[in-house]
Amino acid sequence: MRIQAWIDHPRFTQVVMVLILLNAILVGLETYPYIYDTYFPWIQWTDRLLLWAFTLEIVLRLIASRPTRSFFRDGWNVFDFVIVASGHLFVGSSFITVLRILRVLRVLRAISVMPSLRRIVTALLLTLPSLAHIAFLLSILFYIFAVTGTMLFGKVSPEYFGTLHDTLLTLMQMITLDSWASGMMRPMLDSTPWAWIYFMLFVLLGSFIVMNLIIGVIVTNLDRADNEGKPQQQPDHDQDNQLQELRNEVGELKAMIQQLSERSK
Amino acid sequence: MRIQAWIDHPRFTQVVMVLILLNAILVGLETYPYIYDTYFPWIQWTDRLLLWAFTLEIVLRLIASRPTRSFFRDGWNVFDFVIVASGHLFVGSSFITVLRILRVLRVLRAISVMPSLRRIVTALLLTLPSLAHIAFLLSILFYIFAVTGTMLFGKVSPEYFGTLHDTLLTLMQMITLDSWASGMMRPMLDSTPWAWIYFMLFVLLGSFIVMNLIIGVIVTNLDRADNEGKPQQQPDHDQDNQLQELRNEVGELKAMIQQLSERSK
Amino acid sequence: MRIQAWIDHPRFTQVVMVLILLNAILVGLETYPYIYDTYFPWIQWTDRLLLWAFTLEIVLRLIASRPTRSFFRDGWNVFDFVIVASGHLFVGSSFITVLRILRVLRVLRAISVMPSLRRIVTALLLTLPSLAHIAFLLSILFYIFAVTGTMLFGKVSPEYFGTLHDTLLTLMQMITLDSWASGMMRPMLDSTPWAWIYFMLFVLLGSFIVMNLIIGVIVTNLDRADNEGKPQQQPDHDQDNQLQELRNEVGELKAMIQQLSERSK
Amino acid sequence: MRIQAWIDHPRFTQVVMVLILLNAILVGLETYPYIYDTYFPWIQWTDRLLLWAFTLEIVLRLIASRPTRSFFRDGWNVFDFVIVASGHLFVGSSFITVLRILRVLRVLRAISVMPSLRRIVTALLLTLPSLAHIAFLLSILFYIFAVTGTMLFGKVSPEYFGTLHDTLLTLMQMITLDSWASGMMRPMLDSTPWAWIYFMLFVLLGSFIVMNLIIGVIVTNLDRADNEGKPQQQPDHDQDNQLQELRNEVGELKAMIQQLSERSK
Repeated sequence: MRIQAWIDHPRFTQVVMVLILLNAILVGLETYPYIYDTYFPWIQWTDRLLLWAFTLEIVLRLIASRPTRSFFRDGWNVFDFVIVASGHLFVGSSFITVLRILRVLRVLRAISVMPSLRRIVTALLLTLPSLAHIAFLLSILFYIFAVTGTMLFGKVSPEYFGTLHDTLLTLMQMITLDSWASGMMRPMLDSTPWAWIYFMLFVLLGSFIVMNLIIGVIVTNLDRADNEGKPQQQPDHDQDNQLQELRNEVGELKAMIQQLSERSK
Repeated sequence: MRIQAWIDHPRFTQVVMVLILLNAILVGLETYPYIYDTYFPWIQWTDRLLLWAFTLEIVLRLIASRPTRSFFRDGWNVFDFVIVASGHLFVGSSFITVLRILRVLRVLRAISVMPSLRRIVTALLLTLPSLAHIAFLLSILFYIFAVTGTMLFGKVSPEYFGTLHDTLLTLMQMITLDSWASGMMRPMLDSTPWAWIYFMLFVLLGSFIVMNLIIGVIVTNLDRADNEGKPQQQPDHDQDNQLQELRNEVGELKAMIQQLSERSK
Repeated sequence: MRIQAWIDHPRFTQVVMVLILLNAILVGLETYPYIYDTYFPWIQWTDRLLLWAFTLEIVLRLIASRPTRSFFRDGWNVFDFVIVASGHLFVGSSFITVLRILRVLRVLRAISVMPSLRRIVTALLLTLPSLAHIAFLLSILFYIFAVTGTMLFGKVSPEYFGTLHDTLLTLMQMITLDSWASGMMRPMLDSTPWAWIYFMLFVLLGSFIVMNLIIGVIVTNLDRADNEGKPQQQPDHDQDNQLQELRNEVGELKAMIQQLSERSK
Repeated sequence: MRIQAWIDHPRFTQVVMVLILLNAILVGLETYPYIYDTYFPWIQWTDRLLLWAFTLEIVLRLIASRPTRSFFRDGWNVFDFVIVASGHLFVGSSFITVLRILRVLRVLRAISVMPSLRRIVTALLLTLPSLAHIAFLLSILFYIFAVTGTMLFGKVSPEYFGTLHDTLLTLMQMITLDSWASGMMRPMLDSTPWAWIYFMLFVLLGSFIVMNLIIGVIVTNLDRADNEGKPQQQPDHDQDNQLQELRNEVGELKAMIQQLSERSK
């Protein structure tokens, strides 16, 4: 019970944020070889301390949530748990790179700790399903152009179109328009003068679909903003109620006059 | 009749999707020379089987649709038919590349088979007519700059402005902003210092028109989303009806009082 | 009078469009040296014929418009007149390039002849004034960065920052993000390691303002689309009228009952 | 009092604008070494005159505002004051570059002098807070990728990923898509074939968040435009009032009939 009160206190979140910031600075400093070599024991010691602090935090939050199961129902809690737990799993192991990346990923906890960032990321993730269909369409386009590209240019330009996965990477570069003409198409025009048809078609179709993908997100976002910002139908319902009451009153009037009329017969 | 029932069954669409996926994996694997050379008979055999499976599917759907003509009224059906029929036409021919591309294009059938993708592609195609005018304007801009570009820089930079079609390709590259300055304009500035006027003018005009093209699509999409999402005038009609009934009732009241008044004379 | 009837006939516009198309093809063919050299007399002869045909068209339209002055009130007519008149002015002169560019510009007449294109270009031009302020802001940004860039990097990188106009061209390239880092910033980092501050600041500020420029156009376009598509306030006025009549009727009722009441005293 | 009248006069703003323009031309001309060397005394003399003119302007405006403190409450006034005051501070000092940049920054005063530009800049600045959260999210993404990038590729590609700040600059270049694949990823693929995962992930995540940042600005702008342009709820309130009065009248009617009914008993 008291733990619950502790956790809900704003000071608790602030302390965790400071720890995450400390962790972030630490992993940043480590990338400078000079600092890493000189202060290695200090860094390792601080890192272990931080890991245990995060573990304590998770355990406290785990205890506070009743029933305990409900803790794992929130995706963010699961994320926190996995990040911290895997830190313990790999401790002392020889996968140093994995361990260091895990420590970097702890910076992501800043999102799960700050409610406003959590809300934004959730909102971003919610736009994804509405894009699923167009993303699938885009992947069909990618696949068809990847197979034909490898077939047609595999021998002409092995660097870009050598294998199917090379071509997929090339198409990804092409869709960002990075050197699609200057670096990729032009050098091929000498040997295969008709190559421009392939490139032009992909750039046009690709950017048309990507444009529609972006517009899809814009429309979804504007719709949501519209629905949030405009409870405009409410006054109409007020008027509906008023009209209903008016009709009731007129009905009463009618009954009264009926009565009057009958009496005066 | 029974065929109709078969075709409408969700299992039928699922089987066709699996076949398309199989076809997609097959054409993907073929691009790796090692796999192609080792398993050539297997690939050829599977491919023939797939072609006949697709043929069977089309024939079944053709029979099921009554009258048969109505089958060809749907553009998607025509597309399916052409893709599969041309597979038979070129079989055994020496145009191996054409045949392989046709097999790749069968992957596009995933769109015609899945109703949700069909709807999206139809929606994308519907935005095109509203862009026709601005696209025509853009092509006038391209043509004028292509002719002047070839005239002015044909001898200065034959790689980019040698012939009219070369210049058109260069303008296409310029509108995507790929190395327009670093690769094309700067090397020409030494010999023709005033070339920047041509490049600047095209980049400014071109991106202004393309921007308006994109905005056109956004506005069209938002309008459609608006029209779909807001049947908002309905409640007003409800109120109109209520007001009308209220007036009728008040009219009745009036008649009653009139009666009363006449009687009391 | 009869001329007016001629000009308004759709056939007239179609004939002019065909002439413009012919002119477009002619200037396109001229860019190929082989065709130009072989068919030179033919091309020159056709071109003169076309010029006189356009002159005749303008003269006819000039005569048909009464008073004649009103012809020059429409900007598009002035544009047509200048394009054709200047063709006569430079005839036989030695400014061959000017003459050829003028002939290319006649293709622009396709816009002034087709009403739908005219409307789109007018719409595009109408969005410009609403952008004037932000464009002025952008030019202040350009000027400040051009002067500081020339001051700071004039000796380090004379190619890009040698003089004020060089720097302005460099900034224009930078705002399109073409090789801003790979081609311009990175080679300078060795001699002036703090150069990234200048580049980053300009790219961030520049793209922020350009983004707002684009959003300005989107908002203007959406607003216009909104105003065109929604005469929605009308039904409310209908209801106002109905309510007013209802009140009148209730007022009459009141008077009648008053009368009744007085009579029953 | 008379000073107040002077300052509010449109001629006053015009004179200041002319001085700012003169200042702008002067700093522009200075960048050309030939002009700077030949006319150095003239330039220095004009510059001092301009500085005193601006000082006079600020002093006049400072006197005119009562109480004097209120002058510094407006951020734009503080900006003007700092720009001009620092010009006096550094006069005669050896920080020539600082002094020259200060003189360039005086061009920014064009914004604070023109009310329409002031309004636009204020509007631009007002969109920033709504972007704070997403910008924070973006900086978390940058930091995580910067640390992992330095860790993984620090030795493979020291030019781009040598130190943490190098990597941050590289990521900035990557998010503008400038040569991200052609210049940075491809040369690394030979030594580290799995590097594409890092690049792809960052480009996809980065452009997704940046896209949402831009959409955020669009939605904020559209919302503001909506709120300004549509005082549409007003008619509804009118109707509410009318309905209320109608109910009052019906209430009176009821009372009258009640009276009548009682009397007729």
